[in-house]
Amino acid sequence: MNRRDLFRLPFLQAATPLEPVHRRPLPAPGSEPGVLVSEPGAVPPSMTVMAYGPHEITEAPVDDLGLLRNMRGKWPVVWVNVNGVAHAPTLQAIGDIFGLHRLALEDLGDVRQRAKVEAYGEDHLFVLVRMARLAPELDLEQVGVFLGRDFVVTFQERPGDVLDPLRQRIRASRGRVRQNGPDYLAYSVIDTIVDHYFPVAEAYADRLDALEDEIVDRPSRDVMTRLHAVKRELMSLRRAVWPMRDALNHIVREPGPFVTEQSVVYFRDTADHCFQVLDLVETYRDLGSSLTDLYLSNVSNRMNEIMKVLTVFAAIFIPLGFITGVYGMDVEHPRRAWWWDLPFVFTLMGVTALLLLAWFARKGWLDKEG
Amino acid sequence: MNRRDLFRLPFLQAATPLEPVHRRPLPAPGSEPGVLVSEPGAVPPSMTVMAYGPHEITEAPVDDLGLLRNMRGKWPVVWVNVNGVAHAPTLQAIGDIFGLHRLALEDLGDVRQRAKVEAYGEDHLFVLVRMARLAPELDLEQVGVFLGRDFVVTFQERPGDVLDPLRQRIRASRGRVRQNGPDYLAYSVIDTIVDHYFPVAEAYADRLDALEDEIVDRPSRDVMTRLHAVKRELMSLRRAVWPMRDALNHIVREPGPFVTEQSVVYFRDTADHCFQVLDLVETYRDLGSSLTDLYLSNVSNRMNEIMKVLTVFAAIFIPLGFITGVYGMDVEHPRRAWWWDLPFVFTLMGVTALLLLAWFARKGWLDKEG
Amino acid sequence: MNRRDLFRLPFLQAATPLEPVHRRPLPAPGSEPGVLVSEPGAVPPSMTVMAYGPHEITEAPVDDLGLLRNMRGKWPVVWVNVNGVAHAPTLQAIGDIFGLHRLALEDLGDVRQRAKVEAYGEDHLFVLVRMARLAPELDLEQVGVFLGRDFVVTFQERPGDVLDPLRQRIRASRGRVRQNGPDYLAYSVIDTIVDHYFPVAEAYADRLDALEDEIVDRPSRDVMTRLHAVKRELMSLRRAVWPMRDALNHIVREPGPFVTEQSVVYFRDTADHCFQVLDLVETYRDLGSSLTDLYLSNVSNRMNEIMKVLTVFAAIFIPLGFITGVYGMDVEHPRRAWWWDLPFVFTLMGVTALLLLAWFARKGWLDKEG
Amino acid sequence: MNRRDLFRLPFLQAATPLEPVHRRPLPAPGSEPGVLVSEPGAVPPSMTVMAYGPHEITEAPVDDLGLLRNMRGKWPVVWVNVNGVAHAPTLQAIGDIFGLHRLALEDLGDVRQRAKVEAYGEDHLFVLVRMARLAPELDLEQVGVFLGRDFVVTFQERPGDVLDPLRQRIRASRGRVRQNGPDYLAYSVIDTIVDHYFPVAEAYADRLDALEDEIVDRPSRDVMTRLHAVKRELMSLRRAVWPMRDALNHIVREPGPFVTEQSVVYFRDTADHCFQVLDLVETYRDLGSSLTDLYLSNVSNRMNEIMKVLTVFAAIFIPLGFITGVYGMDVEHPRRAWWWDLPFVFTLMGVTALLLLAWFARKGWLDKEG
Amino acid sequence: MNRRDLFRLPFLQAATPLEPVHRRPLPAPGSEPGVLVSEPGAVPPSMTVMAYGPHEITEAPVDDLGLLRNMRGKWPVVWVNVNGVAHAPTLQAIGDIFGLHRLALEDLGDVRQRAKVEAYGEDHLFVLVRMARLAPELDLEQVGVFLGRDFVVTFQERPGDVLDPLRQRIRASRGRVRQNGPDYLAYSVIDTIVDHYFPVAEAYADRLDALEDEIVDRPSRDVMTRLHAVKRELMSLRRAVWPMRDALNHIVREPGPFVTEQSVVYFRDTADHCFQVLDLVETYRDLGSSLTDLYLSNVSNRMNEIMKVLTVFAAIFIPLGFITGVYGMDVEHPRRAWWWDLPFVFTLMGVTALLLLAWFARKGWLDKEG
Repeated sequence: MNRRDLFRLPFLQAATPLEPVHRRPLPAPGSEPGVLVSEPGAVPPSMTVMAYGPHEITEAPVDDLGLLRNMRGKWPVVWVNVNGVAHAPTLQAIGDIFGLHRLALEDLGDVRQRAKVEAYGEDHLFVLVRMARLAPELDLEQVGVFLGRDFVVTFQERPGDVLDPLRQRIRASRGRVRQNGPDYLAYSVIDTIVDHYFPVAEAYADRLDALEDEIVDRPSRDVMTRLHAVKRELMSLRRAVWPMRDALNHIVREPGPFVTEQSVVYFRDTADHCFQVLDLVETYRDLGSSLTDLYLSNVSNRMNEIMKVLTVFAAIFIPLGFITGVYGMDVEHPRRAWWWDLPFVFTLMGVTALLLLAWFARKGWLDKEG
Repeated sequence: MNRRDLFRLPFLQAATPLEPVHRRPLPAPGSEPGVLVSEPGAVPPSMTVMAYGPHEITEAPVDDLGLLRNMRGKWPVVWVNVNGVAHAPTLQAIGDIFGLHRLALEDLGDVRQRAKVEAYGEDHLFVLVRMARLAPELDLEQVGVFLGRDFVVTFQERPGDVLDPLRQRIRASRGRVRQNGPDYLAYSVIDTIVDHYFPVAEAYADRLDALEDEIVDRPSRDVMTRLHAVKRELMSLRRAVWPMRDALNHIVREPGPFVTEQSVVYFRDTADHCFQVLDLVETYRDLGSSLTDLYLSNVSNRMNEIMKVLTVFAAIFIPLGFITGVYGMDVEHPRRAWWWDLPFVFTLMGVTALLLLAWFARKGWLDKEG
Repeated sequence: MNRRDLFRLPFLQAATPLEPVHRRPLPAPGSEPGVLVSEPGAVPPSMTVMAYGPHEITEAPVDDLGLLRNMRGKWPVVWVNVNGVAHAPTLQAIGDIFGLHRLALEDLGDVRQRAKVEAYGEDHLFVLVRMARLAPELDLEQVGVFLGRDFVVTFQERPGDVLDPLRQRIRASRGRVRQNGPDYLAYSVIDTIVDHYFPVAEAYADRLDALEDEIVDRPSRDVMTRLHAVKRELMSLRRAVWPMRDALNHIVREPGPFVTEQSVVYFRDTADHCFQVLDLVETYRDLGSSLTDLYLSNVSNRMNEIMKVLTVFAAIFIPLGFITGVYGMDVEHPRRAWWWDLPFVFTLMGVTALLLLAWFARKGWLDKEG
Repeated sequence: MNRRDLFRLPFLQAATPLEPVHRRPLPAPGSEPGVLVSEPGAVPPSMTVMAYGPHEITEAPVDDLGLLRNMRGKWPVVWVNVNGVAHAPTLQAIGDIFGLHRLALEDLGDVRQRAKVEAYGEDHLFVLVRMARLAPELDLEQVGVFLGRDFVVTFQERPGDVLDPLRQRIRASRGRVRQNGPDYLAYSVIDTIVDHYFPVAEAYADRLDALEDEIVDRPSRDVMTRLHAVKRELMSLRRAVWPMRDALNHIVREPGPFVTEQSVVYFRDTADHCFQVLDLVETYRDLGSSLTDLYLSNVSNRMNEIMKVLTVFAAIFIPLGFITGVYGMDVEHPRRAWWWDLPFVFTLMGVTALLLLAWFARKGWLDKEG
Repeated sequence: MNRRDLFRLPFLQAATPLEPVHRRPLPAPGSEPGVLVSEPGAVPPSMTVMAYGPHEITEAPVDDLGLLRNMRGKWPVVWVNVNGVAHAPTLQAIGDIFGLHRLALEDLGDVRQRAKVEAYGEDHLFVLVRMARLAPELDLEQVGVFLGRDFVVTFQERPGDVLDPLRQRIRASRGRVRQNGPDYLAYSVIDTIVDHYFPVAEAYADRLDALEDEIVDRPSRDVMTRLHAVKRELMSLRRAVWPMRDALNHIVREPGPFVTEQSVVYFRDTADHCFQVLDLVETYRDLGSSLTDLYLSNVSNRMNEIMKVLTVFAAIFIPLGFITGVYGMDVEHPRRAWWWDLPFVFTLMGVTALLLLAWFARKGWLDKEG
C-alpha cells in the first residue's frame, strides 16, 4: 500500500485488498428512478440460502433461482444472502420472487447511501446498514437487509462478511435464533454488524494512543499527517454510524407488522450499541483536536528552544567578536599601554561573556525547561 | 478566468461562461410586495411546452401565449418551461393562464431566495430549488416549479439545464413518467436536479484530494488560497441544499392535494438524497478544517527546519569566527610560543566544531526527521 | 470618523452621524416595572399621523394629541409615527389614547430589547423590531409597532427612517395597502424594515470581498483589525435578525385577532426574508473565519520567506567570513606556500558558496514558491 | 487584591471584599438527603420581616421566630428575608413555620446549585436564582425564593443585596406592589435581581472595549491574561443566567396555583430580560474569540517585523563584513594594484548595500506596512 | 505511576491501584445476545446482603445463594451487593432468583456501556450508572442497579465503593431510608454515586487552577501535556455523566410500577445534580480551551522576546563589527590622517550604537512589556 493510497477518501472507495473493485458506475442523474442498471461486465453474483425452523435446517448455494421460488412458504425462515449488487437481472429476479420494492433495489446499487429503514407497506421492511472492517484500511461495505413475513434477504457488495459466527450459531442451533422468526434473524444480522464497530473503534483508540505517545516524546514530521488520516477515517465512521442509530430507533418506535413486540427490546439494545460507538467516535474526535493543540504547542516550544540556542550563541559571540575586531583594527594607537595587554583583553571578554550568561540564566533561557 | 474571478462570491453572482448575466436589480426595499418589476432591457424569455398523456405527446416552442391557453385542460399533463425571469409581462401572463400566486411570481425574480415549498391553497404548490452545475465555477441557478392539477410550470434564470435526460425519457416513453400525473413529473424534475449535486460534490472531493496530496508532499504558497476557495464554495453548496431538504420533507409530511400518496415515497427518496449531499458537504468541510491544521503544522515544521539550519550554521561558525578574531588581534604577545602555532589553532577550531555538532546531533537537530 | 469610533460596540451606541444621541439612561434595576421615566431634558417628540381608507387619505404632523383622540374610530386605518421614546408624558398620553400596555411602553424606552412579538389579549399586538442602516456605521435603531383593530402606532428612537417609499405608495394609492386593514400596514412596515437588511448585508459581502482580495494579494497590517470590525458588526446584525425571525414565525403560527388569515401569508414571506438574511450573515461569519485562517497562513508563509532569506545569507556568508578570518590570523606560518595563494582562497570560497547554494536549491529554498 | 486572587474561579469562591466567607462545607456524598447540616460555628442569621396590604405595612427585624408564627395569616403578604443559610436550626424552624420542603431547604445550603423552579404541590413554589454584583470581582450569590399563598421567604447567603429600591417602593407604596399579592412580590424580587445583570454585563463590554483598544494600539504582555479572565467570568455569568431563563419560562408555561394569570405576563417579561442578558454574554464571548484571533495575528505581525529588521541588518552587513574580511586577509598579493584601492572598496561595498536595499524594498520589507 | 500510564485512555482501562484488573474479554461480535460468558479464570465474586424493614435489620456476607432464595419475600427490602461481574454462573444464579432479564445481565459484563435505564415490564427496572473516583487517576466503575418490588441488587466491577456512608445510615436507622421501600434505597444508591462526582469535578477545577497559575507565571514545557490529560479526563467524565442525566430524567418522566410518586421528586433532585456536574464539566472544558489560547499566546510572546534580544544584539554589533572590519582592512591609505584616529573610531561606533538603540527604544523593543 503506497502513501497515495493511504490518503484516498475511504468512503468513496470501498476497496478491499482481497478483491479490488472499481467505483460503481452511478446511474446518470436524470435516469428513471427504480430502474436497475447493470454494471458493464457484471456477472451474476454468488448466492447462498439457509432455510430453517426450530427442528430442521437446510443450506445450499443458489445456482438456480427456481430453488428460491420453491423454498418460499415451505420454511419458517428463509435467509438468502447475495454477494454482489452489480448484476441487474439477478436483482430483478430476486425482487420478483420476494416482492421487493424497486426503489429499494435501486438503493442497493448506489453505494453512497446513508443507513436507513424504509417500511414498504405490507410487503417488507428494508434496512440499509454499513458493515465496518479494517482490512487494513477502513472498509465500510453497504449491506441491505429485506425483512418479510417468512424471509430475510441480505445483499452485500462483495463476498466475505462478518456473519460467520451467526451462521455457526444457526447451524448448531445454539441460542434462540432457531426458535424465533425472521425478525430475530434480521436483528441478529444487524447486531453482529453493529458489534463489529467496537473492535474497529478500538483500533483507532490504539492509533491515537500511539500518536499521543509519539507527540509527547519525540514527534516525527509526519505525525500530523497520520493524525489527519485518523481524523478522516473517524469522520467516515461517524457518517456510517450516525444514520444507523436513527434507523434502528425508527424500528423501535414503529416496529410495523414484521417486528414482534418481543424483538423490539433487542433492536433497542442494538440502537444503544450504535450510540456507544458514536460516543466513542465523538470522544476520539475531541481527542484528535486536543492532540492537534498539543502538537502545535510542542512545535512552538521546539521553535523557542532553537531560537534560544541561536540567540544565546549569537548574543555572546557577536559582542566578543566585536572586541576582537576592535583589537584587530589597523589604527594609530600607543603600543604597550596598560590597557593594551593580552590578559586585559581576555579578562574583558570573559567578563562580558559571564555577564551575558548571567542575564540569560536569570531569564531562564539556559534551563532545560522553560 | 482570471484570479479575481476565482474569488468572487459565487452565490451573489451566478454567472456562467456561456451567457454572462449582470446582477438582477432587486426590488427596492419598501416596494409593493407581489408587484413584478421588469429588469431594464429585458426581452420575453424563450419558452417550450411539452404536453403528454400515456399514449400521445406534443412538444413545441412557445412564441404565442395563446398556445398555452388552448392547451390547458386538453392534456393530462402540460409542462411549460420558461428560460428567464426578467421580463415581468411574460411572468404576469403565464401567472394569469395558470392562476399562479403573485408572491410566488415575485420570488422568482429575486435570485437570492432559499429553497422552499409553499402551498397556495387549492391553486398550486410552489417549489423553489437550486440547480447546481460546475461550468467550471459553481453555478447555483434558481429554478421555480409550479405544480397544479394538470400542469407543471418551471422557471429557470436562463436557457440550458440538466433536464435533457428527463425530456428524452418522456419523448421515448421510457419508464413511468408518461403513465403518471404532473406530481410525478414535478418529482422527476426535482429529483434530476438533486441528483446533479452528486457529481458536483464529488468534484470537490477530488479537489480536496489533490490539495491533500499537495499539502503532504510540497505545498505551494497559494494552496491555502485554493483551500479557502473550496471551503467557500462548499458553504454555498450547503446553503443551497440545506433548505431543499427541509422543503422536500415538508412535501412528504404534508403532501396536500397535488401530490398523490404513491408519489410521496418518491419525494421521500429525493429528500434522502438531499441528506446524503448535505452529509458529504459537511464531511468535506470537516476535512477542509483538518487540512488547514495539517497545513499550518507543516508550515511550522518547515519554519523549524529553516531555523535549525540557521542555528547550526551560526552556532558553529560564529564561535570559530571568534577564534580567528582572537588570533587576528593586534595585541602585544610573545610570538612563537607553543600555543601560538597553526596546528594548535586548527585543532582548537576542529574540536570546537565537533563538540557543537555532537551536541546538535544529540538534540536530534541534524536528523532529517524531527 | 476616527479610528476609535470605528471600534465602538455598535449595539451599545446606536449613534448616527446625523444626530448624535447619548446613551439612554436605563431604568435603575429595582424600579417599578411599567413605570415610564423620562430622559432628563427630554422634549416631546415630533409625530405624524396618516389616516386612510380605500378612497380618502389625510396626513398631518401631530402637535396636539387631541387630534389623535378625534381621529380614532373615524378612519379605517390610523397610522401614528412617533419619532422619539425619551419623553414619558407623550408615551403615556398616546398609550392612554390607544390603550397600549404599560410593559410594552416601558420596553420602548429600553433600547437593548430583542425583537419580539407580544400579544396583549384583546387590546393590541406589540411587535418590536430593529431597523438596520449604514450611516456609514451599522445603525440598528429599535422600532416598536403596535397593531390594533383600527390603528398602527410606530415608535422610532429618532427621526429619519426607511419607510418613505411605503408612505409614497400609500399616498399614491399604489398597490394593495389602501385596500387593506391595519394588519397589512403593519406587515408593510415590518417588511420594508426587513428588506433593508439586504443592502446592509451585501455591503458586508463587499467588504469581505475587498478584504479577501487584499489578504490574497498583499495584506496590510491592519487587515485583521478591519476583519475583526466586520465580524463584530455581523454579530450585531445576527443579534438583531435572529429574534426577529422568531417573532415573525410566532405571528404566523398564532396570528391572534388582529392579523387576518389573508395577511398571514405575507408575514410568512417576511419571516422567510429574515431567514435569508440570517443565512447570509452566517455564511459571512464562516467566510470571516476562513479568511482568518487564510491570513494566518499567509503571515506564517511570509515569516518562512523572511527566515529563508536570513538563513541563506547567514549560512553562506558566515562560513565565507570564517575563511577570511582564518587568513587574517596573525599566526606564524610559512609564507608563500602553495596553498597561501590568493587564487586558491577565492576558489575555496567560491566552491563553498556554490555547494551551499546547491544544497539550498535542492531544498527548494531558492524557489519563489515553497 | 493580588493577582492570584484575580484568577480564582469565581463560581467556586463567591467571596466579597466586604465580608470574607470560607467555602461552605458541602454535605458529604452519601449523607441523608433533606437533612440540614449546620456549618461549624454558624450563628443564627439576621432576618427581617415586612408585612403589608394595600393600606398598611409593618416592618421589623426578626429576633424571635414566634413573631413570624404570629404574623402568618394576619397579613395579605408576609415577606421574610433571611441573610444566611449556614445555621441549620433556623432554616428548620422557618421551614416548619411556612411548611417549606426539606429538599428545597437542603438546596439552599449547597451554593453550587443551578437556578431552578420546583413546584412542591399545594405547599409552595421554590425558585432558586443567582444575584450578580461586581464588588469589584464578579459575585454570584445564590438567592432562594419561596412563594406561598400569603408569604414570600427569601434566603440569601449573606447580608447585603440589590433589593433596597424594591423595599423603598413597598414602603412608599409606589407602583403596584402593595395592591398585589405575594406572586407579584416574588416577581419583583426576581426581576430586580435579573435587571442587575445588565450593569454587570455592560461592565464586561467596557472591559472588552478597553482590551480591544489596547490590542489594536499596543498590546502589553498580559493582555491575553486579562482577556482570559474576562472570558472566564463570562462563562460564569452564562452558567448563572442560562438556567434562570429556563426556570422562568417554566413558570410562564406552568404557573401553578401560586402565580395569577395576570402575573404571568410579568414573569414572561423577566424571562425575556434573561434572554437579553444571555444574548449579550454570547456576543461578548464571540467578541472575545475574535479578539484572541486579532491578538495572535498582531503577535505574528510583530514577529514578522522583528524578523525583517534582523534579516535586513544581517543580510546587508554580513556580506559587507565579508568584503572587509577579504581585504583583511594576510595573503600574498600585488600591493597597489588598481583594484586594491580604498575608493574601489567603498564603491564595491556601497553598490552591494544599495542592491540589497533595492531588493528588500521591492519585496516591500522596508515599508511600514506589510 | 509512570508517565505512560498517565496517558492511557482512562475509559478503556478502569484499573485501580488497589486491585489491578485486565481488560474484560468482550463477547465476540456475532455471539448470541443474552448469553453470559465467564472471563477465563473467573472465580465467584464476593457478595453481601442487607435486609431490613422499619424495625429490624440483618446483614451478612453471601457464601451460599440459597440464603438469598430464602430471604426473598420475607423482608420489605432486600439489598444484595455483588462485587464482580466476571463469573457467569453466579450472575445466572442471581438472575434466576430475582428474575433479572438476560440482556440486562449481559450488559453488566460489558464495561463499555453508557448509563441507561431499561424498564423490563413488570419484572424490574434496570439502571446502569458509573461511579467516579480518583484513585488517584479517574476511575469510572460501572454499577448496575436492579430495582424490583421488594429487592435491590447492585453489581459492581470489583470490591470497594462509595456507599459505606449509606450503609451506616441504614444500620443506624438514621434518616428515612429504613421507613421507605426499595425505590428509596435505589435512589439513595444512585444519589450517593452522583454526589461523588462533585469532589471529582472539583479536583479538576483545582488542577486547572494550578495550570492557570503556572501558565501565567512561568509555564514549564509539559504544561500542555498535563492540560491535555485534564481535557481528556474531562471528556471521560462528560461521557459518563451525560447519559446518566438522560437516564434519570427518564425515570422522572416514566416512573413505572417500581418508583412511587413520592420518590420521583428525589430522582428529579438527583437528575438536577447530574446537570450541575455536566455544567461544571462543560465550563471546565471551555476553560481548558481558553487556557490553550493563553498558553499559545504566551509561547508566541516569549518567542517575540527572544527574537527581540537576538535582533537588538545582532543589529547593533554586526554594524559595529563591520566598522572594525573596515579599519582592519589591509588597504593602501594615508596613515595618520584626521579621520584615522582612535577617538574618531570610537565616537563613530558609539554614535552608531546609540542611534540604533534609540530606534529600538522608539519601537518599544527595549521595554519589558511589549
